[in-house]
Amino acid sequence: MTRINDNFLKLPGNYLFAEIAKRVAAYSAANPEKNLVKLGIGDVTRPLAPTVIAAMHEAVTEMGDAATFKGYGPDYGYDFLIQAIRADYAAKGVELKTEEIFVSDGAKSDCGNIGDIFGVDNLVAVCDPVYPVYVDSNAMAGRLGAYKDGKWERLVYMPCTAENGFEPALPDEVPDMIYLCYPNNPTGTVASRALLKKWVDYANEHGSVILYDSAYEAFITEPEVPHSIFEIEGAKTCALEFRSFSKTAGFTGTRCAYTVVPQELVRGGASLNALWARRQSTKFNGAPYIVQRGAAAVFTPQGQKEIKETIGYYQKNAQVILKGLQKAGLAVYGGVNAPYIWAKTPDGMGSWDFFDLLLKQANVVTTPGAGFGPSGEGYIRLTAFGTAEATEEAVRRVTAVL
Amino acid sequence: MTRINDNFLKLPGNYLFAEIAKRVAAYSAANPEKNLVKLGIGDVTRPLAPTVIAAMHEAVTEMGDAATFKGYGPDYGYDFLIQAIRADYAAKGVELKTEEIFVSDGAKSDCGNIGDIFGVDNLVAVCDPVYPVYVDSNAMAGRLGAYKDGKWERLVYMPCTAENGFEPALPDEVPDMIYLCYPNNPTGTVASRALLKKWVDYANEHGSVILYDSAYEAFITEPEVPHSIFEIEGAKTCALEFRSFSKTAGFTGTRCAYTVVPQELVRGGASLNALWARRQSTKFNGAPYIVQRGAAAVFTPQGQKEIKETIGYYQKNAQVILKGLQKAGLAVYGGVNAPYIWAKTPDGMGSWDFFDLLLKQANVVTTPGAGFGPSGEGYIRLTAFGTAEATEEAVRRVTAVL
Repeated sequence: MTRINDNFLKLPGNYLFAEIAKRVAAYSAANPEKNLVKLGIGDVTRPLAPTVIAAMHEAVTEMGDAATFKGYGPDYGYDFLIQAIRADYAAKGVELKTEEIFVSDGAKSDCGNIGDIFGVDNLVAVCDPVYPVYVDSNAMAGRLGAYKDGKWERLVYMPCTAENGFEPALPDEVPDMIYLCYPNNPTGTVASRALLKKWVDYANEHGSVILYDSAYEAFITEPEVPHSIFEIEGAKTCALEFRSFSKTAGFTGTRCAYTVVPQELVRGGASLNALWARRQSTKFNGAPYIVQRGAAAVFTPQGQKEIKETIGYYQKNAQVILKGLQKAGLAVYGGVNAPYIWAKTPDGMGSWDFFDLLLKQANVVTTPGAGFGPSGEGYIRLTAFGTAEATEEAVRRVTAVL
Repeated sequence: MTRINDNFLKLPGNYLFAEIAKRVAAYSAANPEKNLVKLGIGDVTRPLAPTVIAAMHEAVTEMGDAATFKGYGPDYGYDFLIQAIRADYAAKGVELKTEEIFVSDGAKSDCGNIGDIFGVDNLVAVCDPVYPVYVDSNAMAGRLGAYKDGKWERLVYMPCTAENGFEPALPDEVPDMIYLCYPNNPTGTVASRALLKKWVDYANEHGSVILYDSAYEAFITEPEVPHSIFEIEGAKTCALEFRSFSKTAGFTGTRCAYTVVPQELVRGGASLNALWARRQSTKFNGAPYIVQRGAAAVFTPQGQKEIKETIGYYQKNAQVILKGLQKAGLAVYGGVNAPYIWAKTPDGMGSWDFFDLLLKQANVVTTPGAGFGPSGEGYIRLTAFGTAEATEEAVRRVTAVL
C-alpha cells in the first residue's frame, strides 16, 4: 500500500489568501453593490515595460522560424541572461561567477524547492511574521514536527515587532537554516548593514546557512540599505540568495527569477552549489526562452529606465498609504524601501477583526497580520501595488472609518 | 551545523547526457572538420505552429497594456487551458473534472516534484531501461537506498528487452509507486490495452499508485493503442498521468505541461489530488500566461492541423531510421507510435562502444542504451526529432559503417 507524505496532513487547513478570498467573496455576494478596493495580495497591476514587450515579441517570432527556433535551453538559464544578472550584481559591487547563478520560473519555486538539498533534521528559523512559503515547504518536508496551538513544534520563531524595531534577535537555540527576507515581506522594514553583518558572522561561526530573500530589493530608496546579502563580508561562505523579476519588473504572471548559490558555500564537505545544480538539472528544465529574453531586456538601459518609472509609481502609492494612515492615527511601518505597509491595529484590535472592519465598513481588502505568524497579530498589511486612484480611494475610506 | 541531504551524494557522478556531451565535445575538438549529425538527445527542431505563435504574440501584447495585463494566474492553470485539455481528453472518451488537471512548466518538473506527496518508505518500481528523472528524483528523496554496482539497492527494476517483447512482468515484491511510460522513452514501444489493464488491476489490488507518463501520446499512429491510462477501467483509483506540450507541439524551450490526478485516487485516507494541489500552491506559482495562451492554441482546429503536420514530419523521420537500420541489418524497435527508435547493437557490442563507433566512424551522435539502466545495455536510442535531411544523412552514414 502506497504511503503518502504524512507531513502534509499536519498543515493547518486554511491557507491565508484562500481564507481572505472566502471572506471577500461572502461579503461581495451579500453586498453586490459595494465596490471593493483590494490592497491585500501582493500582486502588481502595471503592464510590462515596453522594452520587455518588444524583446518578447521578437523572441516569439524567433520561435516560429526553424532557423531561429529554440528547443531545450540550458537548465540554469541562457548565458545572455546570466551575464546581465552578473553585471547587475557587479554594478553594486558584488562579483559572482557564471556558475553561481541559477535562473528559474519563480522565487516561490526556488524558496520551496531549495529544501530538497538540505537534510530533514536541520533546525529552521524564520522571522515572525513571515512569508508562509518558507514555513509550509519545511513543514511538508518534515522539518517542523507537529502544529500545535498555532505554532510549529520544531521551528524557531524570531519575533519582529514594533517593540524590537522589527529586528530579529539571535535565537537561544542555534538554527541550521535561517530564512531572512529584506526588504521584508510582510512588514516592509529593512535590514541595516550592521544587522546583516551580525547574522553573517553568526551563521559562519555556527555553520548555519542563511536563505536570503531579496525579492523586493528594487524598492530600496535609501542608499545605505544593502540590496544583497553578498554586499556583506563573509556572506559567500554562509548564504544563498533568492531574487525575482516579479516585483522588480511586473513578472508575477510572466514568471522568472534567479537564485545565487556561491561556490564557497560548503557544508559537510559538499558544495551547495553543486547540490542545487544537480537538483535543478534533475527536476527542472529551464525557464521559457521567450521569458528569459524579456527578463534580459529588464537590464538594458531603456529597460532600467522603464521599470524604475513603474517602481516609482508604486513607491508613490506607498507614500500615500503611509502618510494617509499616519494622519488617520495609526502607527505604520515599512513603505519607504518596500511595497508593503505594516500598520498596527487601533486599540489592540485583533488583526482578523480589523480586517473584517475594513472590509465591511471601508470596503477595503487588506491582509491580517496574524496570517503571517503569531507575532503578526495586532497588525495588517497593505500593498502599494494597486492603481494610484484605488490607493487614494482606499486611504480616504479607511480614514473616514477610523 | 547545517546537514545537507546526503542522498544527493549517492547519485552516480556522470549524468547520461553530460557524459555524451563530453565525449562529443572531445571528438569535435580533435576533429573540427567533421560535421556531426545529432540524433541523441530528444529535442525537437521544427518551429512552433503559426497558430501558437499568433496566440503568444497576442498574449505578449496584452501584457503590455494595463487594461489586459495579467499578474499572478491561478496556481493550477488558467481555465481556458484546463477546459481545452478536458475537451481533448473527452474527445478520447476520458471524462475529467476541472479540479483534476494541473498545468505546470514541464513534465520533468512534475515527474520530479510529484515525489513530495509520497512517503519516503515507499518501494519504487521502474521499467529498465527508463527515463533517468524517475530514478534520480527518488534517489534524492532517499527512497532507493545505496547505489552499488550500477544498481540502486531498493529499486525494483522491471527489465524490458527484446526477449520479453519490452513488456514489464509483474514483479515478485509488490512496489508502492510504479512508473510506466507509454509510448516508451527510450524504447519507443507501446503498451496494449491488455497490458495496461493488467497493471491497473494489480495496482488496485495492492493499493499501489501508477505514475503514468504519456508525454509521447501524440505520436501514436495505431488506433488500438491507448493514449491515456484513464482509458483503462479502474485507472482513476490507482493512477495519475503526466502530459506535456514539449513533444506534442514543440514546447521543449517554451515549457508547458499538465498532470492529471483523479479525485478518486486516495491512499491512507488522503486524497492525492488534494496533496498535489497543496504542493503546487505552496511551491509553484503557475505557468506564464503567454505560454498558457500558446498551449491553448494547440487545441484549436487550426492548431491541431498544424501540430499534426509537424508530428507527421517526425514520424516520417522515424520511418527513415527504422527502415534504414533494418536494411543495414540491425534489429530495431519502436518508431511506429513514438519518436524513438531502439536498436540492438551488432554482435552484442556494448552500447557505449557502439556509441563511440558511430560517433567516430559515422559522425552520428546517438544515446547509449546503458545510460537508461542496466537492461539498456546492448542497445542504442535514436530520435526522430532531427531535420529530414540530417536524418537521411545519418542513416546513410550508419549504413556505410555497418
